[in-house]
Amino acid sequence: MSSKIGKFITIEGVEGVGKTTNIDFIRQWLAQQNISHVATREPGGTPLAESIRELLLSPRDETVDENTELLMMFAARAQHLAEVIVPALEQGKWVLCDRFTDATYAYQGGGRGVSMEKIAQLETLVQGPLRPDLTLVLDIPVDQGLARAKSRSAPDRFEQEKIAFFERVRECYLVRVKAEPQRYQVIDASQSLDRVQADIGSVLERCLGCAS
Amino acid sequence: MSSKIGKFITIEGVEGVGKTTNIDFIRQWLAQQNISHVATREPGGTPLAESIRELLLSPRDETVDENTELLMMFAARAQHLAEVIVPALEQGKWVLCDRFTDATYAYQGGGRGVSMEKIAQLETLVQGPLRPDLTLVLDIPVDQGLARAKSRSAPDRFEQEKIAFFERVRECYLVRVKAEPQRYQVIDASQSLDRVQADIGSVLERCLGCAS
Repeated sequence: MSSKIGKFITIEGVEGVGKTTNIDFIRQWLAQQNISHVATREPGGTPLAESIRELLLSPRDETVDENTELLMMFAARAQHLAEVIVPALEQGKWVLCDRFTDATYAYQGGGRGVSMEKIAQLETLVQGPLRPDLTLVLDIPVDQGLARAKSRSAPDRFEQEKIAFFERVRECYLVRVKAEPQRYQVIDASQSLDRVQADIGSVLERCLGCAS
Repeated sequence: MSSKIGKFITIEGVEGVGKTTNIDFIRQWLAQQNISHVATREPGGTPLAESIRELLLSPRDETVDENTELLMMFAARAQHLAEVIVPALEQGKWVLCDRFTDATYAYQGGGRGVSMEKIAQLETLVQGPLRPDLTLVLDIPVDQGLARAKSRSAPDRFEQEKIAFFERVRECYLVRVKAEPQRYQVIDASQSLDRVQADIGSVLERCLGCAS
């Protein structure tokens, strides 16, 4: 990973925050700058990792142990890194990823109460020193986000959680931003889409400036 | 897990060593002693863990990263422990498990060359201090075992490995036995079935003696 020359950008946020729409916007922006890139998502991004995603998201009668969920997330991530993310970065491509390890801290750590140390241990085991260059946290009050998400489709195993769960998830994202402000950019996603995308555009221009 | 009163017995060995036949024998032996028990297997043992097993064993075009395989094994194990093994032991039942963490050391560590430290780290993360009370290693020269296994069914993703892989797996089992001889019993599985089962019976009698 020492030869990494592409930028690794991750997009985070709770349900209904507008990740999909804004990822499309970022892809167009990258294309306009002639920046070769790969857009992908977690958990998933390879056939095996997508199969793990399916197991993770399907509502099921069996109680899923918190260690099981955590290890499945990192299993999918290890595969995604080996097959997609690291090869792309090594070819100089930018990688745009819908959720990454910050989501594990936020959902399994903040949401479920899994120890942050345990997550950090697995992060090191799977990623070594690799971290995103830039993480956009699309932030919105939880009730607004959930109202948007609910209007879309039947809830998956995570979306079935109660509002307090998502409050903890959001809080965890914001705590992480504070602890490492140089890597994160919080975008106020309760604004109009135009304003959100203007903000994202400014962040990307600064990021591109750093890359050149 | 402090209230564990059942015995936790695991059965290990390379392909074709006769695990299934001898597990049936052990179950009959336990039933004759009126010992309430649960027989289970790894990877697997719960609906979710069996789904992970399917993903692990299916031959696939995608190269499976060694971290992915390792984390999937421990994800299935965490679920199996939480849903089956620990509750049974806490109810005073004996648990008889077809493969457990020794197989991860042998196949992922010995076979694939994954670092033993990494496996030990995940073992502690998932199991805490829980280890089997007794591990029976059914031992046979690799070529004899593979000849038996091949006559049974189409090879899974592991059975497609070359003979040198299984030599490393066997060697790893034997190294682990040497390092902790009080937990392991090696059974010479190249003997006649009668002799193998007489040996297993003696070991179980000693184990039962320790339990009472």
